[in-house]
Amino acid sequence: MNREELKNLLESVKNNEINIDEALENLEDLPFKDLGFAMIDNHRELRVGYPEVIYCAGKTPEQIKEIVRFMLTKDNNILGTRATEEAYNAVKEICEEAEYNKLGRTITIKKKEQTLTDSYIAIICAGTSDLPVVEEAVETAKILGNRVERITDVGVAGIHRLFSKLDIIRGAKVIIVIAGMEGALASVVGGLVDKPVIAVPTSVGYGANFGGVSALLSMLNSCASGVSVVNIDNGFGAAYNASIINKL
Amino acid sequence: MNREELKNLLESVKNNEINIDEALENLEDLPFKDLGFAMIDNHRELRVGYPEVIYCAGKTPEQIKEIVRFMLTKDNNILGTRATEEAYNAVKEICEEAEYNKLGRTITIKKKEQTLTDSYIAIICAGTSDLPVVEEAVETAKILGNRVERITDVGVAGIHRLFSKLDIIRGAKVIIVIAGMEGALASVVGGLVDKPVIAVPTSVGYGANFGGVSALLSMLNSCASGVSVVNIDNGFGAAYNASIINKL
Amino acid sequence: MNREELKNLLESVKNNEINIDEALENLEDLPFKDLGFAMIDNHRELRVGYPEVIYCAGKTPEQIKEIVRFMLTKDNNILGTRATEEAYNAVKEICEEAEYNKLGRTITIKKKEQTLTDSYIAIICAGTSDLPVVEEAVETAKILGNRVERITDVGVAGIHRLFSKLDIIRGAKVIIVIAGMEGALASVVGGLVDKPVIAVPTSVGYGANFGGVSALLSMLNSCASGVSVVNIDNGFGAAYNASIINKL
Amino acid sequence: MNREELKNLLESVKNNEINIDEALENLEDLPFKDLGFAMIDNHRELRVGYPEVIYCAGKTPEQIKEIVRFMLTKDNNILGTRATEEAYNAVKEICEEAEYNKLGRTITIKKKEQTLTDSYIAIICAGTSDLPVVEEAVETAKILGNRVERITDVGVAGIHRLFSKLDIIRGAKVIIVIAGMEGALASVVGGLVDKPVIAVPTSVGYGANFGGVSALLSMLNSCASGVSVVNIDNGFGAAYNASIINKL
Amino acid sequence: MNREELKNLLESVKNNEINIDEALENLEDLPFKDLGFAMIDNHRELRVGYPEVIYCAGKTPEQIKEIVRFMLTKDNNILGTRATEEAYNAVKEICEEAEYNKLGRTITIKKKEQTLTDSYIAIICAGTSDLPVVEEAVETAKILGNRVERITDVGVAGIHRLFSKLDIIRGAKVIIVIAGMEGALASVVGGLVDKPVIAVPTSVGYGANFGGVSALLSMLNSCASGVSVVNIDNGFGAAYNASIINKL
Amino acid sequence: MNREELKNLLESVKNNEINIDEALENLEDLPFKDLGFAMIDNHRELRVGYPEVIYCAGKTPEQIKEIVRFMLTKDNNILGTRATEEAYNAVKEICEEAEYNKLGRTITIKKKEQTLTDSYIAIICAGTSDLPVVEEAVETAKILGNRVERITDVGVAGIHRLFSKLDIIRGAKVIIVIAGMEGALASVVGGLVDKPVIAVPTSVGYGANFGGVSALLSMLNSCASGVSVVNIDNGFGAAYNASIINKL
Amino acid sequence: MNREELKNLLESVKNNEINIDEALENLEDLPFKDLGFAMIDNHRELRVGYPEVIYCAGKTPEQIKEIVRFMLTKDNNILGTRATEEAYNAVKEICEEAEYNKLGRTITIKKKEQTLTDSYIAIICAGTSDLPVVEEAVETAKILGNRVERITDVGVAGIHRLFSKLDIIRGAKVIIVIAGMEGALASVVGGLVDKPVIAVPTSVGYGANFGGVSALLSMLNSCASGVSVVNIDNGFGAAYNASIINKL
Amino acid sequence: MNREELKNLLESVKNNEINIDEALENLEDLPFKDLGFAMIDNHRELRVGYPEVIYCAGKTPEQIKEIVRFMLTKDNNILGTRATEEAYNAVKEICEEAEYNKLGRTITIKKKEQTLTDSYIAIICAGTSDLPVVEEAVETAKILGNRVERITDVGVAGIHRLFSKLDIIRGAKVIIVIAGMEGALASVVGGLVDKPVIAVPTSVGYGANFGGVSALLSMLNSCASGVSVVNIDNGFGAAYNASIINKL
Repeated sequence: MNREELKNLLESVKNNEINIDEALENLEDLPFKDLGFAMIDNHRELRVGYPEVIYCAGKTPEQIKEIVRFMLTKDNNILGTRATEEAYNAVKEICEEAEYNKLGRTITIKKKEQTLTDSYIAIICAGTSDLPVVEEAVETAKILGNRVERITDVGVAGIHRLFSKLDIIRGAKVIIVIAGMEGALASVVGGLVDKPVIAVPTSVGYGANFGGVSALLSMLNSCASGVSVVNIDNGFGAAYNASIINKL
Repeated sequence: MNREELKNLLESVKNNEINIDEALENLEDLPFKDLGFAMIDNHRELRVGYPEVIYCAGKTPEQIKEIVRFMLTKDNNILGTRATEEAYNAVKEICEEAEYNKLGRTITIKKKEQTLTDSYIAIICAGTSDLPVVEEAVETAKILGNRVERITDVGVAGIHRLFSKLDIIRGAKVIIVIAGMEGALASVVGGLVDKPVIAVPTSVGYGANFGGVSALLSMLNSCASGVSVVNIDNGFGAAYNASIINKL
Repeated sequence: MNREELKNLLESVKNNEINIDEALENLEDLPFKDLGFAMIDNHRELRVGYPEVIYCAGKTPEQIKEIVRFMLTKDNNILGTRATEEAYNAVKEICEEAEYNKLGRTITIKKKEQTLTDSYIAIICAGTSDLPVVEEAVETAKILGNRVERITDVGVAGIHRLFSKLDIIRGAKVIIVIAGMEGALASVVGGLVDKPVIAVPTSVGYGANFGGVSALLSMLNSCASGVSVVNIDNGFGAAYNASIINKL
Repeated sequence: MNREELKNLLESVKNNEINIDEALENLEDLPFKDLGFAMIDNHRELRVGYPEVIYCAGKTPEQIKEIVRFMLTKDNNILGTRATEEAYNAVKEICEEAEYNKLGRTITIKKKEQTLTDSYIAIICAGTSDLPVVEEAVETAKILGNRVERITDVGVAGIHRLFSKLDIIRGAKVIIVIAGMEGALASVVGGLVDKPVIAVPTSVGYGANFGGVSALLSMLNSCASGVSVVNIDNGFGAAYNASIINKL
Repeated sequence: MNREELKNLLESVKNNEINIDEALENLEDLPFKDLGFAMIDNHRELRVGYPEVIYCAGKTPEQIKEIVRFMLTKDNNILGTRATEEAYNAVKEICEEAEYNKLGRTITIKKKEQTLTDSYIAIICAGTSDLPVVEEAVETAKILGNRVERITDVGVAGIHRLFSKLDIIRGAKVIIVIAGMEGALASVVGGLVDKPVIAVPTSVGYGANFGGVSALLSMLNSCASGVSVVNIDNGFGAAYNASIINKL
Repeated sequence: MNREELKNLLESVKNNEINIDEALENLEDLPFKDLGFAMIDNHRELRVGYPEVIYCAGKTPEQIKEIVRFMLTKDNNILGTRATEEAYNAVKEICEEAEYNKLGRTITIKKKEQTLTDSYIAIICAGTSDLPVVEEAVETAKILGNRVERITDVGVAGIHRLFSKLDIIRGAKVIIVIAGMEGALASVVGGLVDKPVIAVPTSVGYGANFGGVSALLSMLNSCASGVSVVNIDNGFGAAYNASIINKL
Repeated sequence: MNREELKNLLESVKNNEINIDEALENLEDLPFKDLGFAMIDNHRELRVGYPEVIYCAGKTPEQIKEIVRFMLTKDNNILGTRATEEAYNAVKEICEEAEYNKLGRTITIKKKEQTLTDSYIAIICAGTSDLPVVEEAVETAKILGNRVERITDVGVAGIHRLFSKLDIIRGAKVIIVIAGMEGALASVVGGLVDKPVIAVPTSVGYGANFGGVSALLSMLNSCASGVSVVNIDNGFGAAYNASIINKL
Repeated sequence: MNREELKNLLESVKNNEINIDEALENLEDLPFKDLGFAMIDNHRELRVGYPEVIYCAGKTPEQIKEIVRFMLTKDNNILGTRATEEAYNAVKEICEEAEYNKLGRTITIKKKEQTLTDSYIAIICAGTSDLPVVEEAVETAKILGNRVERITDVGVAGIHRLFSKLDIIRGAKVIIVIAGMEGALASVVGGLVDKPVIAVPTSVGYGANFGGVSALLSMLNSCASGVSVVNIDNGFGAAYNASIINKL
């Protein structure tokens, strides 16, 4: 139900064209559906422009399946993040078209075809070990309808690799930089472009990396000004953010 | 010197219309000017779309004055952040029009009039004690040519204050949320809008606030998806970022 | 043995109505029973109003079984927290009625029927992934004789879900708010009610969540004034606390 | 304006007894008053049962004075916390009856006489150096209408001092324990009473105390079950909480 | 070889009673034996009064076996700490009398009978979950020749349990207090005795316990003055220390 | 009043030789004296063998003076630590003989002459910058009646300086090692002696020293076994501990 | 392709001796080869003097095999660090000569014989548990062409072991010190030599060791001046660094 | 006294050419001079190749003056770091030639002329605010006899500034990189050179910079391999290290 339909319904109530009980029935699943253990936020697309996404960590495969089962009754594309293969198999039982990205740990179900954006999001990473976060970001950006350019393994230890890709990077409307260890790539890219840079620290590294803290602090303290940061390994959040910006 | 002029110059070199030495003279201050203790990045506007900003902390008033003196020979608006009143007085000696925002600790010099953007940046804060960061953000956003709407003291402890301003917030193209203590405002706003939210944790609070860490972690872990984060108290960085997005 | 009986016993000693040895026999298991590896605090109900609870983490199933075996000789309901299924099986061998809550990892044995309180404790959580902590809190609150209302998945990213439950929340005598990630729910609820709010940070999240630290700091720094906090994932402690308050 | 009056007003609107403009005028300051730099939450007493409290840290004396000036137009007692002597002097200019507690850094203005509660809050501290936090708690508890018993310098290094006060402690309806260094007092008290204990870690100590972190962690990890915790040095929050419980 | 024998040897050299080569042969394994991957410190008993102890963590069973094989050629009791059952089995192959304490993870080999000290070390713990550390301490204290009194499960949440054991505690020459969670037991004991207290924080607990940090900080900040601290879970170190003091 | 006198008093009560009121009068100041803001622990010498020590940080000069005034009515030596010069001056007003150690920030009042111990405490420090902590330790050890040997500036960067003092160090009954920066001195000394070593990390250093944390962690993780640790800069605690051991 | 060849190629282009397309073909793999998921930095030897090293953690065996497959087409020795046995087996399938150091987790492939340096790197460790890091350092130093002297188990708890090896240590051109726990060995060695010392903290230890943080902080705060530090457990980085210095 | 002279002296003793007392007199100040509060390490130049340096923080001006007074009796250049102007004035009283670098807080006294090295140390910093650390490094490097090239304000936000100086950087024998905020400069430089890079994190920045921790972690986790790290703001240590390497 979109905003227009909702407005019509309310006016019908005001004008006594339908009674309260009828209106209630229409609005029953709105703005959320209580599944007992979860409240699906149907209102969400109306409010923030995107359907709800399932954060699968800490949920049982059975719970995830039930959430998907309800969502399938609506007309939206579906995205699950941090999903185990076990969770995917549970979903597959009720939805043949569900796809699983093993590296990125995402479940995606395309219920309607999207026109991709003209402008694109550049998703850059420093090393091969950052690829799981890259994959999560790419899957998220795509299901939200964005064109994506992916540039991998261009860390600052061999900075000429980055420079060789500068044209693609500068052509993007918004840039996601994914890096672990010292996360210097975000600052270097931030100093070379005039587009918003969303930095994703990754937990790649060891020792004084502290599970991604070194890259996180680097990015928060970036001397380049156009850089904002999301949580460690949060490829989803970066892509969600980038998608909002890309569609402005 | 803008991109077009630069290109013409280079073509003149290629076509032997001017010799190397003449070209060098033209490019002398490009891409940076070495002041001995500082290298002014003149190239910056060309490269990232904005002139360089002076981060005044840790610089002597004398150093700041010299940097400004050189910048005044160019045709850009000038912004200094984290400036003490002493630094401002030093600048004032060589530039009468310099203005100082005491709360926000910014020095601004308007050398050319700007047309403000049609779309606006909403700058929201949780409490009165966050105002210094708000002021830094507002000054930055304005000198970069943006229209700004300011909404203060709408922290979640009295959430109806926030709801009363929802129209102004939703009307913005990009939203800056500034909050200390537990920084919950960022998540609440993030769940109510379909625009990019840039969150600025502030050091407002005490004890287990750890100088802004509690708000920083809150914002990085926001359950609302469209939120990215900048450094603690970094009103400048948030506004700079917002400006890039606002002008896309 | 309750306070009255104890007092009578002591007066009998004072008045020489019974001799020291007889009195000692009566008091033998009081105030604690030494099992060698554990000292059961029998005195506890007398002193703080509740029987001792078994914290099962770090204890072997055999040790837990022995503690339960002794407790069964008394007339109290029994609660074990952080119990593995293995521990439960050990207990089950000596007590058929023992029940296990798999999600909440609690063992409960009801030895006497309780009248539930009239007033109730509202137990609210932000997301489905917080359910294990919710279950621990619910089991604890119930075995201590409290009526409970459970409201799940009302995190601030979709704040209308919370508002739809406001009546139930406001009707409670004391409120437990359970949330991971940025834990903003505690502040929002705290700003909407005039009842004590006990906040439980959970370890739900990843990266800069640091195993629940982000939610913990958020809750400690809550801008809403009626919020106090217990340890990360400590559903038991919150419910125990709430029970004391609910029975005031 | 209390709940009853508000309801009457709304019914008058519904029944067309007054028009919208008249109603708006009545409601003008409700639910908050925008002072430009601050939004006074008038709705607050209605919603959470207590008037708003002024957190003075990070506000200028001038801002605090303006907030007080507006509040004086209402019929509530006023409390300002973390107030400097300078802030107090500013307030004094417009309100002769304002009082200042130098140790506790509170400003209080009594506009109406209160009947104190029958039950009392026990406020206990471990050492003389914790007194500033004690004072903040006492002032808060009193202005909110509670009877208070104060027990100071009963830290666990000389535990008999605590035992000598056990009757007063056990007689309270709710207990606040304030301690720095290792904060062990909270656990010891928690193990001796059947009332809710609100623990306040203080920053008293040095070295590995880390500004109160050692006491904070102690209290969060208390082996005694009825203990909940507020922020370091947060005497206000503890008393506010205790007041809610004391009035249940 | 004890100090006296060594002195005689050196005097023989000085007086030319034996030549350098003969002396060297006598001293060959002194002060250490190089096994390639390890240097056994034979000199140690001479220097610090105790034979070397094998810290088994991070060593392969094969390495541990080789170290023990060499040590068996000397006339000392042998102690291995942090030993896996696998390591024990490897040692058992070459030494039938080796004993394994599963809870305390120690390997002990008694090569000579010791007279125990008259005075004793009291080893106290707060809860049953602290027993592994207790066992490590007990095994260490015993193999070093000390009489030990063990008092378990006397945490401050039921402080009367502790008081019932006060005589045994006060009778010790040195006291080891082992506690996790908030570690308050160390301060309480420290305030009740006139003997040195060595506190061992344990990693028992969860959440804001941070693997024993809460107890560690508590103990370092103890308001009782006679308390010193060793590393988290370091039962060995505490007992080693206590043994030195017990034998003064 | 010593233990014997106390016992006699109690027996007089039991035998009805004196009545309750008379006994109470005798015991009035026992076991503590309530000064309103402080409870002086008179019982302390009886219980732990030493009179109470005044921790002056966070107390006003006036409070300290009142505590001393009361203590002067007893027959004990008096020690105040962390005292400002201002506090000392306040004490001096009521006690001419009070002495101040400016570097160590201690106030000492000798009310009775002590026989010093035969055995001595060696107090060793790594560098000249550690001297304030050395002074606090020396003053404490002396007022408690111990003979002291002081060895300064023997840090491991020039390890031969340490070796030249080895005889004095090995001659002590207990050794205090005071060091900042990396605190390696504790491990080196611990490996060279057969006496208990009490390590005091100091806040000497900068940067990744984190106010003494680097030395603290070093000492807690010492590979030498006979080392226990007290709080950062806690010269008092180390000396108090050493004194107990020295007098065993 | 070395620097000379590259220069010749470029001059041929300038002099029109070869056309752009021919030159491009020659330079195709220069300066990097894009494998899709990885960009091999062929330019690296030219630029920093060493071929690229494969950091295997976080890469799949298949990815590692592909990277090695490409590298084998060049004429360089190959080093993979942090390699699992599974990764080694994958590499072995395409390269029989690949060798695996199980303790040090390195894969090495020698494609050309090297003359070792005359001067040597001394690699010293404190305990047997540090050997995995030692092995990584030794393998790295060797494949980079350095002579190595290895000295193990010379921790400061038995400092005479270190002194017995002082000649070998002082004979080195550069020294690597590897130590866990309190890491004091670095400071002691640093104070005894006139050569650069590269310190490697290891994660050997437990409790307040925090995975190597204690040793890391010790080494960063070393009172000996010639010590620099690399990441925890980073044997590779230390040896790489030492190799650069050894070849100066 | 150099090594040769020392050897001669010892041989004279062995051959009975001088007696013990005469030898002692010669060696009196060797290897250290005890000033009571400080032990000057005269042996140091012999042992590690450089005279001792005075770390002035935490020492009184009087102490510093006394140390200098003794050092002046020897024939070495003198360096004091972290010196206040007050300390300098004290030194100046006894040594006219003492010089003070206000920005770098160093005192230097040149007692003998040095030939500078042919090779040079490049000292690079990211921003003008890093200059105090640069100055400390430059003064240290110079007094130790090194040629220095200084390159300032070449942070990665404007990376072309760095590239313009690449020749000077690559020409150095060893490179010091000084940077605050995210410290990315170290990684970028490390990836561009084949010389050892010593990285110095600075405390320049704010918020999540945590006094230099962000830069420190960045540098420790550098993806470029030839980088080692010293303490935050430790310009002295970096230069000392670089000097050792530069003179190899």
